[in-house]
Amino acid sequence: MINELKDIKIFAGSTGKEFAEKMCKYLNSTLGKSSVKKFSEGNIFVQIQETVRDKDVYLVQSIGMNPNDEFTEILFWMDAFKRASAKQVTAIIPFFSYAKGDKKDEPRVSIRARVCAECIEVSGADRVVTMDLHSPQIQGFFKKPVDHLFAMSLLSEYIKTMNLNNLMIVSPDSGFAKEARMYSEYLDLPIAIADKTRRDHLENAKILDIVGNVEGKNIVITDDFTISGGTLIDLAYELKKRGAKKIYAVLSHVLLTKEGLEKIENSPIEKIISTDSVKNEYIKNNDKIKIISVAPLFAETIKRIHLRKSVSCIFEKLPYKIIKNSF
Amino acid sequence: MINELKDIKIFAGSTGKEFAEKMCKYLNSTLGKSSVKKFSEGNIFVQIQETVRDKDVYLVQSIGMNPNDEFTEILFWMDAFKRASAKQVTAIIPFFSYAKGDKKDEPRVSIRARVCAECIEVSGADRVVTMDLHSPQIQGFFKKPVDHLFAMSLLSEYIKTMNLNNLMIVSPDSGFAKEARMYSEYLDLPIAIADKTRRDHLENAKILDIVGNVEGKNIVITDDFTISGGTLIDLAYELKKRGAKKIYAVLSHVLLTKEGLEKIENSPIEKIISTDSVKNEYIKNNDKIKIISVAPLFAETIKRIHLRKSVSCIFEKLPYKIIKNSF
Amino acid sequence: MINELKDIKIFAGSTGKEFAEKMCKYLNSTLGKSSVKKFSEGNIFVQIQETVRDKDVYLVQSIGMNPNDEFTEILFWMDAFKRASAKQVTAIIPFFSYAKGDKKDEPRVSIRARVCAECIEVSGADRVVTMDLHSPQIQGFFKKPVDHLFAMSLLSEYIKTMNLNNLMIVSPDSGFAKEARMYSEYLDLPIAIADKTRRDHLENAKILDIVGNVEGKNIVITDDFTISGGTLIDLAYELKKRGAKKIYAVLSHVLLTKEGLEKIENSPIEKIISTDSVKNEYIKNNDKIKIISVAPLFAETIKRIHLRKSVSCIFEKLPYKIIKNSF
Amino acid sequence: MINELKDIKIFAGSTGKEFAEKMCKYLNSTLGKSSVKKFSEGNIFVQIQETVRDKDVYLVQSIGMNPNDEFTEILFWMDAFKRASAKQVTAIIPFFSYAKGDKKDEPRVSIRARVCAECIEVSGADRVVTMDLHSPQIQGFFKKPVDHLFAMSLLSEYIKTMNLNNLMIVSPDSGFAKEARMYSEYLDLPIAIADKTRRDHLENAKILDIVGNVEGKNIVITDDFTISGGTLIDLAYELKKRGAKKIYAVLSHVLLTKEGLEKIENSPIEKIISTDSVKNEYIKNNDKIKIISVAPLFAETIKRIHLRKSVSCIFEKLPYKIIKNSF
Amino acid sequence: MINELKDIKIFAGSTGKEFAEKMCKYLNSTLGKSSVKKFSEGNIFVQIQETVRDKDVYLVQSIGMNPNDEFTEILFWMDAFKRASAKQVTAIIPFFSYAKGDKKDEPRVSIRARVCAECIEVSGADRVVTMDLHSPQIQGFFKKPVDHLFAMSLLSEYIKTMNLNNLMIVSPDSGFAKEARMYSEYLDLPIAIADKTRRDHLENAKILDIVGNVEGKNIVITDDFTISGGTLIDLAYELKKRGAKKIYAVLSHVLLTKEGLEKIENSPIEKIISTDSVKNEYIKNNDKIKIISVAPLFAETIKRIHLRKSVSCIFEKLPYKIIKNSF
Amino acid sequence: MINELKDIKIFAGSTGKEFAEKMCKYLNSTLGKSSVKKFSEGNIFVQIQETVRDKDVYLVQSIGMNPNDEFTEILFWMDAFKRASAKQVTAIIPFFSYAKGDKKDEPRVSIRARVCAECIEVSGADRVVTMDLHSPQIQGFFKKPVDHLFAMSLLSEYIKTMNLNNLMIVSPDSGFAKEARMYSEYLDLPIAIADKTRRDHLENAKILDIVGNVEGKNIVITDDFTISGGTLIDLAYELKKRGAKKIYAVLSHVLLTKEGLEKIENSPIEKIISTDSVKNEYIKNNDKIKIISVAPLFAETIKRIHLRKSVSCIFEKLPYKIIKNSF
Repeated sequence: MINELKDIKIFAGSTGKEFAEKMCKYLNSTLGKSSVKKFSEGNIFVQIQETVRDKDVYLVQSIGMNPNDEFTEILFWMDAFKRASAKQVTAIIPFFSYAKGDKKDEPRVSIRARVCAECIEVSGADRVVTMDLHSPQIQGFFKKPVDHLFAMSLLSEYIKTMNLNNLMIVSPDSGFAKEARMYSEYLDLPIAIADKTRRDHLENAKILDIVGNVEGKNIVITDDFTISGGTLIDLAYELKKRGAKKIYAVLSHVLLTKEGLEKIENSPIEKIISTDSVKNEYIKNNDKIKIISVAPLFAETIKRIHLRKSVSCIFEKLPYKIIKNSF
Repeated sequence: MINELKDIKIFAGSTGKEFAEKMCKYLNSTLGKSSVKKFSEGNIFVQIQETVRDKDVYLVQSIGMNPNDEFTEILFWMDAFKRASAKQVTAIIPFFSYAKGDKKDEPRVSIRARVCAECIEVSGADRVVTMDLHSPQIQGFFKKPVDHLFAMSLLSEYIKTMNLNNLMIVSPDSGFAKEARMYSEYLDLPIAIADKTRRDHLENAKILDIVGNVEGKNIVITDDFTISGGTLIDLAYELKKRGAKKIYAVLSHVLLTKEGLEKIENSPIEKIISTDSVKNEYIKNNDKIKIISVAPLFAETIKRIHLRKSVSCIFEKLPYKIIKNSF
Repeated sequence: MINELKDIKIFAGSTGKEFAEKMCKYLNSTLGKSSVKKFSEGNIFVQIQETVRDKDVYLVQSIGMNPNDEFTEILFWMDAFKRASAKQVTAIIPFFSYAKGDKKDEPRVSIRARVCAECIEVSGADRVVTMDLHSPQIQGFFKKPVDHLFAMSLLSEYIKTMNLNNLMIVSPDSGFAKEARMYSEYLDLPIAIADKTRRDHLENAKILDIVGNVEGKNIVITDDFTISGGTLIDLAYELKKRGAKKIYAVLSHVLLTKEGLEKIENSPIEKIISTDSVKNEYIKNNDKIKIISVAPLFAETIKRIHLRKSVSCIFEKLPYKIIKNSF
Repeated sequence: MINELKDIKIFAGSTGKEFAEKMCKYLNSTLGKSSVKKFSEGNIFVQIQETVRDKDVYLVQSIGMNPNDEFTEILFWMDAFKRASAKQVTAIIPFFSYAKGDKKDEPRVSIRARVCAECIEVSGADRVVTMDLHSPQIQGFFKKPVDHLFAMSLLSEYIKTMNLNNLMIVSPDSGFAKEARMYSEYLDLPIAIADKTRRDHLENAKILDIVGNVEGKNIVITDDFTISGGTLIDLAYELKKRGAKKIYAVLSHVLLTKEGLEKIENSPIEKIISTDSVKNEYIKNNDKIKIISVAPLFAETIKRIHLRKSVSCIFEKLPYKIIKNSF
Repeated sequence: MINELKDIKIFAGSTGKEFAEKMCKYLNSTLGKSSVKKFSEGNIFVQIQETVRDKDVYLVQSIGMNPNDEFTEILFWMDAFKRASAKQVTAIIPFFSYAKGDKKDEPRVSIRARVCAECIEVSGADRVVTMDLHSPQIQGFFKKPVDHLFAMSLLSEYIKTMNLNNLMIVSPDSGFAKEARMYSEYLDLPIAIADKTRRDHLENAKILDIVGNVEGKNIVITDDFTISGGTLIDLAYELKKRGAKKIYAVLSHVLLTKEGLEKIENSPIEKIISTDSVKNEYIKNNDKIKIISVAPLFAETIKRIHLRKSVSCIFEKLPYKIIKNSF
Repeated sequence: MINELKDIKIFAGSTGKEFAEKMCKYLNSTLGKSSVKKFSEGNIFVQIQETVRDKDVYLVQSIGMNPNDEFTEILFWMDAFKRASAKQVTAIIPFFSYAKGDKKDEPRVSIRARVCAECIEVSGADRVVTMDLHSPQIQGFFKKPVDHLFAMSLLSEYIKTMNLNNLMIVSPDSGFAKEARMYSEYLDLPIAIADKTRRDHLENAKILDIVGNVEGKNIVITDDFTISGGTLIDLAYELKKRGAKKIYAVLSHVLLTKEGLEKIENSPIEKIISTDSVKNEYIKNNDKIKIISVAPLFAETIKRIHLRKSVSCIFEKLPYKIIKNSF
């Protein structure tokens, strides 16, 4: 029951259009017709403008810089596709912002990632494709299959092209140590692990501790995302103080606002290498920010989903076609 | 198992604080402690700041001027209360904005009110209290009990205090005719029913038709809500053209933005009488807008819910205590 | 993945056989083999008598003159098809009687339409096709896709063939005003709106008020259904009193019992134009009742569902093939 | 948290009124106020006429002689109680007619008992109390707790009062052999087991085989219910042919229609001993039918449920108060 | 949409490998690649080792001699297949051990068969194929389709080949009388029904009662399964005491442990005829146990499922190909 | 609605008895009566032996050394309590073994922790209390409230009593770095972070890398659990090689089998400090293993749950009563 590639039908949510078009270009397909209106009082209205009866459809939209609008819109899309009798509805969510609300680490809070996952499913999603979730356990918040992509190999390949030497990976906190280890392994580089801690008898202040010797090293800080840039910049200064040389950062998602961007520009960070998983107008055409497109990675993934092929092997060895279309 | 009134525990969402405080004042209770943060990238984080284990809690928040933020926040509150082991969680949603997405009147759209209802339930709501839904059928979108309040009697009582004569009720379209009939019956006034229609051989243009003779009448237009004021103003001019005298409007909810408000100020409408169901900064202290508080109505309702008394009888005869606290 | 038309497999419930056969005739297909037994104590037993493994099946049965038998039987059919491993089960319910229980307009009642919708879904329906629901919101009581058909254009086309002049549409109450407006637009006719009301200081009696001038007009009363004929006849007399000439009624569904029919026969109503959505033995071969078949409309709809084509365009322009087979 | 007995609130469905009143009499309580209307077209409308907010309510209605009406009505009651905010809703269904549709013993049929169980739960039932289900496994069709009562000890006690001698229990088929064994043990009587079988080389005819010697015995046939009386009468003649003397039958439920009753009257069966689990007008005041009320058994059960006491011990030793009120 | 036979993809759980391979042999297909690890602390880890995206997969594993390991493993398989995007997942469970926990016959116990059924479904099973459930009602514990196979005709055919004469079927208790009747009909043999009972004024002791005369007969005891052999052996001695000659037993499933097997070897039972539904190392190569393979029966069934053909007709007339491959 | 402490009703699963009795001792209550049988073929049968109607019950059982038996037994307990009409059922699972199956880190595997969580909930659990889950996100696999306890403060308090000096915390891998940081903060100690890595150009071998200088330090390795002791011992040797002095390990759960224990005994590890969360006969009375009871911690938690008090504050400051009863 191999369907032909032309049957892939990608639709874009209001902030996913550019990303979806890059995917379509990779796949030589055309974007599905649809419209979104946001009324003056804030209500969103979505409409599919071609028949999707019995089709496999893919809706592209991150939960990113306007997470509540984007999340609510996804719910309406899922319902619209189901009520329009689509056969299978896949939500492509390159960045899933509420993933960071993945546990009850304080009393009486919500596990927001589970709430969002459950609402997306109850509204009709049959599958989700996303990238670099704040924690891999979030796949388990979904009952339906989740394809969890990783930007690490693509970003690492780009770092290789930068021809930097004497490099060291630094994790900005203990929670990200495992992911930083993966960069360290992929690029065959040593690692240091930073964290804010209350040690040294200072009851109320947290100091930045770094386990591992960074002196004389060029540094690549790795993290999943940054909002204000604050953690990155503090760490960059501390690294400098301890004798580090040039400092780079590699991030899966970049949510910097105008203020955050200015702080980065005035910081010791040479360059941030990240992806286009979030529609973020602020970071376009900025010398300090290099954006690698992950749209080819998503496009290749859904192509394989559609052709009933294995997705996992993409990550074992990144196809050259993806690299070529991403940098 | 009658619980005492002091056990009523009302919490407020970020835009429901003022309304919730009016409810607490009516009930001589204090607002539950909680906090909401909205981070710079748009994520909402909610936390309950006192124990609610095994308590009946009420969370007050309309889905109003920022519907997606407010809706998403409600979901997180529901989950937080459930995970904090509240016994029963009631969402008090004085205005439920997405109620107008209550049917599939165009191909391939979402029934947004059902999506919202289902997500609110799946996130943990055991009961919903709301007012003047766009259609009464929306109660059936919920599986859990819904207390559906009506502003009509309260608003009608206020109209009585205005001592206007030779009055006539006008429904702005056929869809609201049934509700307009209720005002007509309560106030013992004649009725006319307007609507935009494609009649008169003009294929693409809609003209405003009014069934019933309005000449020489003072008019009270009744509607459930207005956003831009457009429909009301068009109707007001048509009524004037047909010889109507003074024109008033009575609305359950008022979502006017700054632009809408300016249009109303320059229109033939003498006054809008409405409620505080939506947190709307624009309409405060405006001579043309009279706001009646429905917080006492909601407070009396949950008092009766809490005391296991019938709610329906409030609407058979509006208690004086409510009227006194509302005008 | 276009399936051929011969794969459409229609089955009939105990009161849907005639309707289903008309559908099969339109589609040149044969009715699926099945049997229903009703035992002397009232139990219903259903059995499918051919394999339906992995097939798309359609079960035809209204919830009509014996609503509880018919509803319960539908539940058993849904379960039987699911357990027999049908791929997709569609319930075709030309008239959904309990649709009128669509809200809680009195205290402590059931929202019967939601109960029925949920039970039909939980028993196995993947889709529902129905016509002229009492309110369009009932689509939202279903989680699964609902195709909601309208008899209006078909009935209007028939009215055109009657060559009546000086016509006016009358809605029998405010709640139907919106639907009456659609007839008014489709046929380019003026409209009046009636309603029973408590106005005029008579506390306990309701009088019949008509907004709009009906004098000298030929009248087409429009309504979704009638049971006893009472409302129609009362309205007809009032219209006569106000100077109306000939009076017709156009109804989506007709549930008249023998008594109701006699009352109609002795009333000022010239003719009722309606559909065969309900199996109703009383109204066959009666001069005052003209029945238009909607079976072709349903057949064309499921043909398009089956061929994965858009259904909505049928209602934009009624295909001639349907009209030809319906009158 | 022991609630007082006066808090028990019993309501009756349209055919459960007499039974519910007997329960109330046993408990010295009064029946809850409610109304049911059945409209001329067959629709049922239910309304609770007193507040039930946060109360434990019990709705009494068998699925008996009009099973589809009674089943549908139960669904509406469940929903009405839930939407009226009852705390816990118990459906008391003395006879659950569709219990005999408990398996798929033919291809492509429905498991009707599961369908009914699931719909009753989805409509709001928190608990079910019933008696002598066709098979005990049906408890497992419900997810919610089921109290399954047995008439056996009560009916056996009555048989003891009849002072018959030389008695033998006969099961009318293999499927009821296990239940017949319980009568045999309780009354310390020998047993024979009948069945229709295709043995003896007669391909298409079934003959009635009886395992065990019945000659010279007075017989008590035991079964769960009879509709037409056919099986009982055939067996009675066969028993006579094999030398049995007087023949009695003890049944949990009796669904005999007028025709069935006449057949019984003209048969060798001396007397049927059964219960009032089904509202059956035909069998009232008939010399051949002795009705034992099980309303006290149900009343005692819900009293114990309400007082949070064990129900199972009723059946270990039947309280005298029940026997006294039942015969 | 007839798929070819080569698309059938059978996988084996840790104790289902031998059975699955027999099925593959019958179907000329190869077993799907997968691995199961059981860690030293008892945790089970399953992994599918080939792509199953959009495929119909069948997982073979009984809940047999290690029921909790086997049940838990099935749950993980279901989830793994679903998350690997299989199109439809069928659990083939030749013996479903917890089926005997099918009712609440004692106070405050679990209905374990319903618990297992529900967990298997919630973990992802779309269909279940099983054989000779302890009671046929268990199909109704599943919401999804269950194909319920019977070993009776296959086992009966084998008995015919044994050329025994003067045979009689004996049911070991009343609860199995109905199934024993089926053997009696299929083989055209008389029947006797045994049971342990408390009759004869011995309050605490149960004696073994047999209804029907077994003197001079060769006996085939029929039962669904045996664990310790105890019931069978007690019955065999009682039959001998009453003059029976040779005694055989035919069982659907055989769970004998080493101890049980020794008891059987030393008993009057000539031979047990049973199936390979349970992986049981103890009974291999034992002269007193004849194992008939039911793998061909299951293979033929899923072949028909796959080809969308009726399954029920297998049991109307057992295909010779099955018999040939089973004995 | 504060219930008195005597109403707490704790029941024990088959491997939770000792732990539950310690809890009862702390609370001065008596264990609920119940029985578990495991039959020779492996089936488990559970029965509650006192009435639990409308009670809050707590079932104590880890998923530990026999995880599949223990997990399946928990499901049956949940169902039994629900069907026995308990008001609220809490599963106390001190160690939740399958928590380590919390993500899809390889293709086509199951997220076993989600499967177990969902089955426990679907079988009837209203709440879960557990300790030191492999990852905190697992709380989000449950829809119902989870109280997640931590052994860290209790174990740290014990380490303080050991009066060791020049101590350093070592995390055995990057994934546990965050939790190790908590020990480091609580005890105000420096930290080093180990991990197995593929760095240093050795393609297929993993070497053990340690970030941070351990020379001359006494070491406390922290981890959540150990099965074979392998990781701990390898790390201990590596630490020794790098100049560490005495080596201790602190573990939340200890699953060592006999073989593992022997390896620990012959290793450089001085002592393991752990808890009684798992019933583990091997480690009793072993000089190298110090067991701290967490039963008082669980008892205090459910006491607070029962008294509707906050649980979170236990962890802000450990009550002395707990420490006293634990060491």
